[in-house]
Amino acid sequence: MIVLNGGSSSGKSGIARCLQAVLPDPWLTFGVDTLIEAMPASMRESDAGIEFAPDGGVAVGDGFRALEDAWIDGIVAMARAGARVIVDEVFLGGATSQRRWVDALGGLTVLWVGVRCESAVAEGREIARGDRVPGMAAAQAELVHQGVVYDLEVDTTRAESMECARIVAARVV
Amino acid sequence: MIVLNGGSSSGKSGIARCLQAVLPDPWLTFGVDTLIEAMPASMRESDAGIEFAPDGGVAVGDGFRALEDAWIDGIVAMARAGARVIVDEVFLGGATSQRRWVDALGGLTVLWVGVRCESAVAEGREIARGDRVPGMAAAQAELVHQGVVYDLEVDTTRAESMECARIVAARVV
Amino acid sequence: MIVLNGGSSSGKSGIARCLQAVLPDPWLTFGVDTLIEAMPASMRESDAGIEFAPDGGVAVGDGFRALEDAWIDGIVAMARAGARVIVDEVFLGGATSQRRWVDALGGLTVLWVGVRCESAVAEGREIARGDRVPGMAAAQAELVHQGVVYDLEVDTTRAESMECARIVAARVV
Amino acid sequence: MIVLNGGSSSGKSGIARCLQAVLPDPWLTFGVDTLIEAMPASMRESDAGIEFAPDGGVAVGDGFRALEDAWIDGIVAMARAGARVIVDEVFLGGATSQRRWVDALGGLTVLWVGVRCESAVAEGREIARGDRVPGMAAAQAELVHQGVVYDLEVDTTRAESMECARIVAARVV
Repeated sequence: MIVLNGGSSSGKSGIARCLQAVLPDPWLTFGVDTLIEAMPASMRESDAGIEFAPDGGVAVGDGFRALEDAWIDGIVAMARAGARVIVDEVFLGGATSQRRWVDALGGLTVLWVGVRCESAVAEGREIARGDRVPGMAAAQAELVHQGVVYDLEVDTTRAESMECARIVAARVV
Repeated sequence: MIVLNGGSSSGKSGIARCLQAVLPDPWLTFGVDTLIEAMPASMRESDAGIEFAPDGGVAVGDGFRALEDAWIDGIVAMARAGARVIVDEVFLGGATSQRRWVDALGGLTVLWVGVRCESAVAEGREIARGDRVPGMAAAQAELVHQGVVYDLEVDTTRAESMECARIVAARVV
Repeated sequence: MIVLNGGSSSGKSGIARCLQAVLPDPWLTFGVDTLIEAMPASMRESDAGIEFAPDGGVAVGDGFRALEDAWIDGIVAMARAGARVIVDEVFLGGATSQRRWVDALGGLTVLWVGVRCESAVAEGREIARGDRVPGMAAAQAELVHQGVVYDLEVDTTRAESMECARIVAARVV
Repeated sequence: MIVLNGGSSSGKSGIARCLQAVLPDPWLTFGVDTLIEAMPASMRESDAGIEFAPDGGVAVGDGFRALEDAWIDGIVAMARAGARVIVDEVFLGGATSQRRWVDALGGLTVLWVGVRCESAVAEGREIARGDRVPGMAAAQAELVHQGVVYDLEVDTTRAESMECARIVAARVV
């Protein structure tokens, strides 16, 4: 299992797709976006669910956390059942978020990868993508890495997704 | 856990979203589309993965089946961990596909729902949607129900998604 | 040129795609969604642009109207240049919206088609689709038809998109 | 009017969205993708329409060219009617494609912008995006610029979309 953690528009999904292309075995990619899409529409706007503020802030309620815990258990079970899994994550709680995964892993080996991108560059990419709430990239750029421990870190500020993927892949085989 | 099984364009996803809206608790929805999206792009065109033929036929290889087994284990683990889960499925193998779920469930209770739609109507909806390989609706309309055992069946040919969802919801509470 | 006018989730886009499938010549389909996508992200949230209220209301500003007038001129020019065009429209201003098209047409022949759907049914379909602001279907169901003059009307409440498309197509050839 | 011409995955759309964000007036963005989406599904696979070969090649037939001519006339009409328009184009025919626009412009002023990206880098980005036929980036990288005359050129190989957009914007005001 590989966990890629980084802020919005830091380039995690691009690295995940490049990893799927360069790694010799088939890997599945799941992310927090997969979970959000699976939720009822009402939870994307409610206190119990997730809320995207106009300034790019993201708040999640207890209902969201409960479903997320079950989601994490499920992803870990897929890995235990033999699937190679890349997780594309945004640790809004920093070290606390990482601990939730560690608690669920029960000894399963994970390659922890930090995906960094300078805030100003991530902001520009957020505008270029055009499908995200403006402000998320800047709000999350530093926040998601606080206290998180990595096996390796990549920085997309001046490196392409494919270059970063090759660095990660070299640690997998 | 609720499993909705039906052919392409039979209306499963619409029923799933209506169920999420009418059921009092939050339910997660996952489907075979979630799994396909998680796969490497190369598996969507290869012998080991999944292949969408120009005539609407769908063929899956051994590599796909292996990942799908791990996927099923993961979804079941989410349900065991307390998440309410709606599964939006296409049993290309009919009874054989259902057995794979039953084997993974280990006693977990499931409401099995068959979603039927007359082939000609499903074909028209496939054209109206415009985002599916033409021919899948007709090819799968009967195929996916062969030998499958249900707790209840709904038919979207002349009923709206919301009506079907209310029938299913009445069996959940 | 064919103009389909109806509220959100009344089934216009499905009818447009079915029309493209059943009409012998190639037809292009453009809609107000095409225009909104072409606008700067900032106009989708501002007073000068378009605003989707949480209750399903839609408000458009002067900046939006100015761009829309140019857009209408452009679509009419495509039709004059020989393209067969289906327009998928939401006349928020009813008869006033229709007049803006009539003024731009300069004698070009149009088949005006009203696409109706009972409010309660459109609301259910809006939930089943899951990609629209809830409330738009109900808010627009009657509003968009006020004072509008049609060559024919179809009702998707109990008819499939394909059936409605065949009725429209019979008037085109 | 601004025309951005470059190969698939060269970064045109990102530059267009950044231009919309940095230019003081509202600009509309249309591209060849808008036209393809407007076409009947059948034209995306037929000899008369457009065909995406598995190796990334793109072939367009006479039917496509006829509709494209009407489309160009329509976009020019929007600009004449007062809309500021950014066109996101792929000149598969190089200089011949540019001439078709020039012939339709009738004296309307255009800023011609070449968007370049080294083939290997564009290929990597194509994989990172995951939503394009692999091979298009490489096949088009040089092809689309053959014989085309520009007012300015930008290169996204080592520059962000936002940087390129600022260079273009400086020539607009």
